[in-house]
Amino acid sequence: MTLIDKLNWRYATKRMNGTKVPQEKIDRILEAIRLSPTSFGLQPFKVIVVEDQALRERIYNEACQQPQIKEASHILVFAASKNVSAAQVNDYMELIATTRDIPVETLSGFRAAFDGIVAGSADQNFVWTARQAYIAFGVGIVAAMNEDVDATPMEGFSTEALDKILGLAEQNLGSTTILSLGYRDEKTDTLVHAAKVRKSKSALFQFI
Amino acid sequence: MTLIDKLNWRYATKRMNGTKVPQEKIDRILEAIRLSPTSFGLQPFKVIVVEDQALRERIYNEACQQPQIKEASHILVFAASKNVSAAQVNDYMELIATTRDIPVETLSGFRAAFDGIVAGSADQNFVWTARQAYIAFGVGIVAAMNEDVDATPMEGFSTEALDKILGLAEQNLGSTTILSLGYRDEKTDTLVHAAKVRKSKSALFQFI
Repeated sequence: MTLIDKLNWRYATKRMNGTKVPQEKIDRILEAIRLSPTSFGLQPFKVIVVEDQALRERIYNEACQQPQIKEASHILVFAASKNVSAAQVNDYMELIATTRDIPVETLSGFRAAFDGIVAGSADQNFVWTARQAYIAFGVGIVAAMNEDVDATPMEGFSTEALDKILGLAEQNLGSTTILSLGYRDEKTDTLVHAAKVRKSKSALFQFI
Repeated sequence: MTLIDKLNWRYATKRMNGTKVPQEKIDRILEAIRLSPTSFGLQPFKVIVVEDQALRERIYNEACQQPQIKEASHILVFAASKNVSAAQVNDYMELIATTRDIPVETLSGFRAAFDGIVAGSADQNFVWTARQAYIAFGVGIVAAMNEDVDATPMEGFSTEALDKILGLAEQNLGSTTILSLGYRDEKTDTLVHAAKVRKSKSALFQFI
């Protein structure tokens, strides 16, 4: 199947059948997320991979009463940095220097590009870091369908409750979105055969 | 090549050689963007596809002095809705009803799910609509590499200047990010052979 075929095959799965996704597929989906681009390459987020059933029951009860949370194989919580700190930027400079085997001092010009971000308010930072997490989220959705794994992109949960359950605030993180991974339950999912609704090309694009 | 191979092949191309991307590749990249999921399926954004060289020169001069703007084949400007209006939600309900051949009245429960969004402030709306645009942006990045087309995900431009040039405010839109599409110039792009810098699996993920 082509990428377009797969995008037509996928849908926001409402009900899943509990079947586990093989570990090698999970690994490849996570590797795609890890390789996703982000602004400046900073990757200002973490992805919490929850397989534990008891924890998913708790998330269902306290933060997100959508059945996929319990019926999925794994849920991926995309949690963005609440604030971009100078230490975080320094760590990133060290990572570049190590990866490319160059002196970290040669990155001082690049490092200065982060000054405005570090000086920004926590609210401004989170708007920006969440966007970066959403790029990886989009890549993760494609990576899942590429493995013939169903996925549900999810918002509409209590970020406050989820942050508390996962201890995210202590890590300077805030949850933004969830990707549930598993397999569609064709018997119970009423939307499994529903036509995909999308704006027309002329409505979505403007050509100049 | 696998998806992972392609993700390793791609990089944020700094210099492009001006070669045009064939129309059928552009069409498939745009179709992938059109099929991207968004929260509730609302697609609260537009993508401005700029091929016109004179307009790209102007964008370069006034909004974004990065060479890809001029050296790319096309640039895609992802512009999110500044505000989610009741009319926009109504249009979407009509689109669902028409696509699925169901009476629009049956969607009243689903429609109510948008009440809180429509009642939200313009700032809150834009935080949310921009995130939806970034999902499509992530999918667009994958679609480009899938066509062996280089792409540069770009921020760091003057959104104010770009909005003015493209007349976005009049359309209730604000620019969020740009995807430049074209082909790497191996002679001038100093980063063409640089090692990809990414956090380790253990740094990016937490497993529970």
